[in-house]
Amino acid sequence: MASNTLGTVFKVTSFGESHGPAIGVVIDGCKAGIPFDESFISKQLQRRRPGQSALTTDRKEDEKFSVISGVFEGKTTGTPICILIPNTDARPADYEAMKNVFRPSHADYTYHTKYGVRDYRGGGRSSARVTAGWVAAGAFAQSILAQKGIIIQAYVSQVGNIKISKPYTELNLADTDASSVRCPDKEAANAMEAYIEQLKSQGNSTGGMVSCVIKNCPAGLGEPLFDKLQANLAKAMFSINAVKGFDYGSGFEGVGLTGQQHNDEFVSAQGKITTRTNFSGGIQGGISNGNDIYMQVAFKPVATIATPQRSLNTDGEEVTLEAKGRHDSCVVPRAVPIVESMAALVIYDHLLMAGI
Amino acid sequence: MASNTLGTVFKVTSFGESHGPAIGVVIDGCKAGIPFDESFISKQLQRRRPGQSALTTDRKEDEKFSVISGVFEGKTTGTPICILIPNTDARPADYEAMKNVFRPSHADYTYHTKYGVRDYRGGGRSSARVTAGWVAAGAFAQSILAQKGIIIQAYVSQVGNIKISKPYTELNLADTDASSVRCPDKEAANAMEAYIEQLKSQGNSTGGMVSCVIKNCPAGLGEPLFDKLQANLAKAMFSINAVKGFDYGSGFEGVGLTGQQHNDEFVSAQGKITTRTNFSGGIQGGISNGNDIYMQVAFKPVATIATPQRSLNTDGEEVTLEAKGRHDSCVVPRAVPIVESMAALVIYDHLLMAGI
Amino acid sequence: MASNTLGTVFKVTSFGESHGPAIGVVIDGCKAGIPFDESFISKQLQRRRPGQSALTTDRKEDEKFSVISGVFEGKTTGTPICILIPNTDARPADYEAMKNVFRPSHADYTYHTKYGVRDYRGGGRSSARVTAGWVAAGAFAQSILAQKGIIIQAYVSQVGNIKISKPYTELNLADTDASSVRCPDKEAANAMEAYIEQLKSQGNSTGGMVSCVIKNCPAGLGEPLFDKLQANLAKAMFSINAVKGFDYGSGFEGVGLTGQQHNDEFVSAQGKITTRTNFSGGIQGGISNGNDIYMQVAFKPVATIATPQRSLNTDGEEVTLEAKGRHDSCVVPRAVPIVESMAALVIYDHLLMAGI
Amino acid sequence: MASNTLGTVFKVTSFGESHGPAIGVVIDGCKAGIPFDESFISKQLQRRRPGQSALTTDRKEDEKFSVISGVFEGKTTGTPICILIPNTDARPADYEAMKNVFRPSHADYTYHTKYGVRDYRGGGRSSARVTAGWVAAGAFAQSILAQKGIIIQAYVSQVGNIKISKPYTELNLADTDASSVRCPDKEAANAMEAYIEQLKSQGNSTGGMVSCVIKNCPAGLGEPLFDKLQANLAKAMFSINAVKGFDYGSGFEGVGLTGQQHNDEFVSAQGKITTRTNFSGGIQGGISNGNDIYMQVAFKPVATIATPQRSLNTDGEEVTLEAKGRHDSCVVPRAVPIVESMAALVIYDHLLMAGI
Repeated sequence: MASNTLGTVFKVTSFGESHGPAIGVVIDGCKAGIPFDESFISKQLQRRRPGQSALTTDRKEDEKFSVISGVFEGKTTGTPICILIPNTDARPADYEAMKNVFRPSHADYTYHTKYGVRDYRGGGRSSARVTAGWVAAGAFAQSILAQKGIIIQAYVSQVGNIKISKPYTELNLADTDASSVRCPDKEAANAMEAYIEQLKSQGNSTGGMVSCVIKNCPAGLGEPLFDKLQANLAKAMFSINAVKGFDYGSGFEGVGLTGQQHNDEFVSAQGKITTRTNFSGGIQGGISNGNDIYMQVAFKPVATIATPQRSLNTDGEEVTLEAKGRHDSCVVPRAVPIVESMAALVIYDHLLMAGI
Repeated sequence: MASNTLGTVFKVTSFGESHGPAIGVVIDGCKAGIPFDESFISKQLQRRRPGQSALTTDRKEDEKFSVISGVFEGKTTGTPICILIPNTDARPADYEAMKNVFRPSHADYTYHTKYGVRDYRGGGRSSARVTAGWVAAGAFAQSILAQKGIIIQAYVSQVGNIKISKPYTELNLADTDASSVRCPDKEAANAMEAYIEQLKSQGNSTGGMVSCVIKNCPAGLGEPLFDKLQANLAKAMFSINAVKGFDYGSGFEGVGLTGQQHNDEFVSAQGKITTRTNFSGGIQGGISNGNDIYMQVAFKPVATIATPQRSLNTDGEEVTLEAKGRHDSCVVPRAVPIVESMAALVIYDHLLMAGI
Repeated sequence: MASNTLGTVFKVTSFGESHGPAIGVVIDGCKAGIPFDESFISKQLQRRRPGQSALTTDRKEDEKFSVISGVFEGKTTGTPICILIPNTDARPADYEAMKNVFRPSHADYTYHTKYGVRDYRGGGRSSARVTAGWVAAGAFAQSILAQKGIIIQAYVSQVGNIKISKPYTELNLADTDASSVRCPDKEAANAMEAYIEQLKSQGNSTGGMVSCVIKNCPAGLGEPLFDKLQANLAKAMFSINAVKGFDYGSGFEGVGLTGQQHNDEFVSAQGKITTRTNFSGGIQGGISNGNDIYMQVAFKPVATIATPQRSLNTDGEEVTLEAKGRHDSCVVPRAVPIVESMAALVIYDHLLMAGI
Repeated sequence: MASNTLGTVFKVTSFGESHGPAIGVVIDGCKAGIPFDESFISKQLQRRRPGQSALTTDRKEDEKFSVISGVFEGKTTGTPICILIPNTDARPADYEAMKNVFRPSHADYTYHTKYGVRDYRGGGRSSARVTAGWVAAGAFAQSILAQKGIIIQAYVSQVGNIKISKPYTELNLADTDASSVRCPDKEAANAMEAYIEQLKSQGNSTGGMVSCVIKNCPAGLGEPLFDKLQANLAKAMFSINAVKGFDYGSGFEGVGLTGQQHNDEFVSAQGKITTRTNFSGGIQGGISNGNDIYMQVAFKPVATIATPQRSLNTDGEEVTLEAKGRHDSCVVPRAVPIVESMAALVIYDHLLMAGI
């Protein structure tokens, strides 16, 4: 089935493999006359890029991109926008050895079972490389939302068992990029970095959590029944490689509360209707209510590790995977712009769906 | 936007309000020649129905249903199946008082803001009443999957802070309906029931967790990139009223693990490829791998409580909501068939998408 | 595949068979607060109904309908509108004889081949009976368009080889229903009626043409590339049973013209840009230009005739079909409201797509 | 709205403008393991290319293409196939003069009205240049169908008022490319070529007709209600620039026939069910019946002519368009591969929809 398109009005179609000539996206459904901000796209691609710091893999992905269509004299024309990002650091030879091997907790086995034929080089289509295209599209959406005052900010809130204990309202999210781990709490950031360094030296990896806050989102986004705002946010986040959990508002913590604790009392503030608490996470009945929308996205540990692992090959024979190639002990710092991008795609799509 | 349809091949369109003449669904995309099992649909509707036990609300919803189209001589014909479920216990007068009031943590305010006009009677379209239609469609899907050996079982794993500590593999899920709280662990079930009774007597409510396991799901379900199996499961679950969180496999717990702990080693068992552990939760790269798929769905506390609450009316004036009407202190026992139904709709849709 | 939904924003899902309890539609994507005009729906259903005049079949379809959802206190609520039309004149016994026979130029053979199981009673799902639901939905759309000044008028322009020779601009379309054949040219109407009477007495039938004009359609409707206005009009018209051809503007006649003859010169009229001629038929590059949109829809002769025919049964044996049951020698007078409805559905959907 | 995607299972998303760096398509929904036949794509692109003969425009479009993704070691992988066709002969300066002018019967006015911003160079997105991408995708589909024995052949059947009088069954369609006008009837071809030459020398243009036949199409393609095979063929053909009419089977001619003449009697031939005549055009009730599918596509005269024309500019002022630039007096010979491609896309999509 054709399943490479995200969105209802603002539709993003993704294409490309990790080691083909390029990856890219086609954005269809964008209105005409919108300034196309290449610099913010570059910035977000840079934040997603491997090799930004000692913490991450040293693959140097070239994040130059070409706009093939849909933009004329700096503005969108209402026609499809194709963005192409060349794969310049492809080293297919590195992957020849993995041709017939199922790497544990990767998509090798399931792709092999489903498709038979697969581009095994660097994970091919299942590689996180393809998220660069999403970030290009998402950064564009984010720049449009920013023009409307809607701000999307993601940050790392947990690495392994090291968590930020404060709620987002007590953090200065402008500090997010102050640490290479993209955690706005300095103390936690230091501990996270030390932990990642340690795992890296051991050839091991860790899971992590990205939290995301959307501010100034107008009331009225979200379509009952099956395009509830939270449902589409969830779907978008679970599209990201390695994501295992998502919650918003009170989330999993809300299970332990009572209705009397959890109900958000409506109050009037400066002539506007708002709520005293925000356990609802800015969404009620699937529709935004104007309060902050906040959510958590749980990532499993990176599957590629630098210690030998036992596995099977395509003939079902036992093999030992030697620890080779690039290695990223913790993916969540680089996932921050991806989470922002997916949130931006969903919010902007819903803004257009709602005709706002 | 038109947002009342779920599914890609097996499409379910929902219609109806809590206090209109009927609610229903149209199922489009069902193959011809499939026996239409009305008894299992009845059974699941009965499990979802309010008023089953002392634990739940006493609204007596009549769960008779009519099949208007698409079934001929007991078999599907490949044409749309319309199922109509009359609303027989509608008491509009009960709701007249709520016409202009925004109930806390309900969808009143957001619907009012988005639509202006709304059927305020019993929540109208935002009422959980409409999930009866989903259960009818989902039970039909579940019965088809059962014929193929694919078993979907949900159960209550947490109420308030009372949790089952054992993994699902150590539970006997056949015992789920032995307790009115639908928790297969007897000890936990007793504690949950006592807690709910206590809250009910206080006019209060609690959140809860539904866990769900899918067994014998073939490998190959799930479509990269944006119809990953977990993404569509998440979207379906977040369509259910009151859901605040979803995870699968290692989920939020996986954040604290390392790659060496978490990677699922491929092993050969009886000539079949499987994995030694199943932190992946039966899905890798968005595609099922043949192992059990397991997930958790977090529900917030029921918003309707039987104690007075402060709120605002549509004119922005402060009002006190008197505690009236039906009251369900814990919704998760009744959510068990809903979670099963949503899982069934997603799995069967993916089975058809994959052409299996 | 699920293929019973028409439209992108204003989505109409059709369900029901000729001899089941009811046929109907679910309209999803309608805005809130729109008055729901039941009287115009009734009027158009009445125009589509068999048995209106001596010219048509004598099946007395009861065109009462129920609105199950989506309308509250006379206005739409933005939730799905389900309209149910009971089948009250079903006479299944009449059709028992046709159970295993492939009627020539009907859908019996193709449904049998595709589905195996089929509701053979009166054509089941392939019966023109289901267009009653489209007319209900289309009449609703037409009433909304009329409020905006957009007028859709269809009429019979040809029956057999009897044609109106004048262009629509020289006809008084208000006279359409003055003749039972719904041809606004009195002379042609008389000839058509005589021809149909003659064929009816012979147990024979004829093809016909419905022309349709859309006035006051704003410029800007139609989406490049694959939702061109004419493409969606064509698709909608070819969804109607018995339609074999469609053209718009100069249509098939335009093939014989030269560019110098055919190009529509832009001119200024009362400060507005228009064109001197309108060979374009109100659409250029797939987008309406504000001029009249006009089109022709060609219907084949009715396949049900009242003379014996030779055919095959499901075992491939030769059989003779006795001439039984209802018989409609010319379907186009009743097709007039269907064509209007399909045009209305497309135009209104495009209006919403264009955000106008 | 996002409207640049055609197809339900085999989805083709088009992007690009006439004078941007490239045009292209993304094909999503293609199965894995299908040989990717570049040579047939090249051949069809060559047939569509301007400048093939003295009859057509002398723009030399470079029809080299790159496959960016989705094909690995010569076979499809089930992931999106992006095909990029560079625009090498773009001469933007030629079009500067047309920046503010509405060319008669082009899309300039409607795009200007709808979008405000537009890439006016050579028609931008509304240029027939973009059909090169459709031909690339369609030729790929056509090559897959050919492997299954399904043959799609289009040819020119009319230019101006010069028609082939014979039905397709009496023509040798292998002779289509023997004439530069792509008419398989030699006598008609000669007359057409002479007529086109004459118009070209006068700076004028003509309309034309492309007929298309699909042989060996299995029974069962086409989905009721709104994806009838003819409805999707019609929609696809009306997506092609300059198309004003479409019919299939008896088409517009069928209007003049009676039911007794038109009904296709079922007969048994070599143990197979077929029909004695084929007025149905191989489709009954929206579903193919295994007979030949044949259709006609009517094209208006080319709007670009080489004689001065009066028009308006974007300020509503009268201007005279000088006859400059490339000129193609008759587009239908080059439309032959486009019609084949659109037919192939629809048929292959329906084959996958039907699960055949």
